[in-house]
Parts: sequence; C-alpha cells; structure tokens
Amino acid sequence: MTVTVVFHVDETEKWEMALANVHNLLAGIEVESSQVEVLANGKAVEIFTSPDEKNLRRMKILSERGVKFPACRNSLKSHGIDEKALPGFFAVVPIGVLELTEKQLQGFAYIKL
Amino acid sequence: MTVTVVFHVDETEKWEMALANVHNLLAGIEVESSQVEVLANGKAVEIFTSPDEKNLRRMKILSERGVKFPACRNSLKSHGIDEKALPGFFAVVPIGVLELTEKQLQGFAYIKL
Amino acid sequence: MTVTVVFHVDETEKWEMALANVHNLLAGIEVESSQVEVLANGKAVEIFTSPDEKNLRRMKILSERGVKFPACRNSLKSHGIDEKALPGFFAVVPIGVLELTEKQLQGFAYIKL
Repeated sequence: MTVTVVFHVDETEKWEMALANVHNLLAGIEVESSQVEVLANGKAVEIFTSPDEKNLRRMKILSERGVKFPACRNSLKSHGIDEKALPGFFAVVPIGVLELTEKQLQGFAYIKL
Repeated sequence: MTVTVVFHVDETEKWEMALANVHNLLAGIEVESSQVEVLANGKAVEIFTSPDEKNLRRMKILSERGVKFPACRNSLKSHGIDEKALPGFFAVVPIGVLELTEKQLQGFAYIKL
Repeated sequence: MTVTVVFHVDETEKWEMALANVHNLLAGIEVESSQVEVLANGKAVEIFTSPDEKNLRRMKILSERGVKFPACRNSLKSHGIDEKALPGFFAVVPIGVLELTEKQLQGFAYIKL
C-alpha cells in the first residue's frame, strides 16, 4: 500500500513513540512509493541540542529509507538553535504549521503524537 | 448528518475525555449511517489490564451503538497484553498508525485526544 | 497561499503555543481569503474564567484579523461557564468534536495542540 502521511511532534518526550510509530508504519507500506514526513515544531526541536544519540540515530536510519524530517524555523529560533548545527537529514521549513496544513490540503493524512 | 471520523487515543488518562467526546458526537449525528472509530495505540492499550470498569463499560455501550474500537497489535505486544484477553468489542489491527492513515486517506476526519 | 485549517485546543496550558502557531501561520498565508479556526473544548475552555489577560488579548487581536474561535457548549457546561460571560469574539458550537469533524470533511486541515 502506498500512503502519504505527516506526523506532528511538538514535545521532546514524544520522539521515542513517534519514531517507533514510523518504524512500524514502514513495515506495512510500500516505502518506495509512499511519502512519510515527521514535522518537528515547538519544544520537540530541542532534540537537536540534547544528548539523545539513540533517537538521532534512529532518525538517520529512517531518513535513509526515505522519511523526511522537516523542522520549523520559528521554533528553532525561539529555542536558540542554529540551523547549521542540524543533522543533515533535517530540512528547515519556514513555518511548521503551514507545512502541516499544506500537506493535508494536498491529501496527506495527519497523525499527532 | 452522516460523518466518518477516527479518534486517536495513545495515553491511558485520555480515555475518559475520548469516550465523553464520542458520546457527545453521537448526539449530533445520524448514528446508523455514520462510521465512528476509536483507535488505541501506545500506552492507551493498558486500559485492558486496568481495573477501569467504568470506561470499559462505556466502551461496550458505545460499541453496541456501532462505534468501532480497533487496537494496535504492536502496542498490545509491547505492553505484554494477550489479544485473547481483550473484550469482544475490540478488534485488533496490525499497525495502529497505518489504520489512522488509511482511514484518513479514505476520507475520515481525525481527532486526537 | 489560501488555506483552510482548524486548530484543536483541549488543555489550558496549550493556549500559549496554539496562539503563537496561529500568529506564525498568518505570516505565511493570504489571510483575507483563508479560513482559520481555533476550536476549544475540554479543559481549554477554562481560559474564560482564568486571569490570563495576555492570551485573551492575543485572541482578540487574531479575531480582528479573521481567525474564528468556536467553543464547545458541552465543555462550557461541564466546566460551569456561562456562555454569556464569553468574550465577544467567541462563538459557541453545540458539539466541539462535531465541528472538528465537519470542518475536516469540508476539506479543512487539522492541527492538534
């Protein structure tokens, strides 16, 4: 099955479940033809300055399978995080909630953690 | 009004509000022709091993009015819950987030608790 | 860009982030032609009896830019809040989750705080 879905993470402690959910989802879909995004805004962007190597490693593995990780520029700014310090698999989007809105209006499903 | 909507519950303490929401929703729709689901994944599946008779009774009543209660197999496994121990009105789905995605791609609305 | 989106707030402490999100969203869309709603149900309706002047002022400013603020009648009742005491920019809807469902079935995106 081919799906298009955007996950929304806005709290640091939700990353673990979010990434487990995405991992489980990939087992049930045709990954090549699907589009899966995990958008981070609010406090969830703090993972970039945290020592949470385990989850960052998981993200990298998922990104290598095609999962996209957009992060909200406004949230990065308000948490004092330099965009250049982000791991390479993250893409910055200007406004996180606009990304969530656009994707849904394009037909993506939405899952909030 | 006929609606199609899937509720998403992933925390045990959200069941109370979820079931109150579903109960209120039914008062405003044509129940017979509508499709209402309440998907449980993550910690929310712990209700099956809890002594929360009140909410389980509410679920049973809602299920008798046509509300479906799918539960995520991955979550049941990771919380050590035997599928056979589930109340009869629950249906196990292989991957909870895939159910949420599919339903939305079929046109269901989505409400997160 | 023209968008249609409904935000869902059901916890008092989520108002701050919700309003910041809406404020940020407006910066990236054509406000005149878009439809943006922020639906309050559950505990989130307690803001009306709280001394949270800052957020109520923000809501007023957003409402003057066209953002709508529907509040769930069931939630107001269960929190003992008199509808007549609501600020003028709030509109009461009979069933909050029905509003969320209808808007999505009409094509609105959904963002949960």
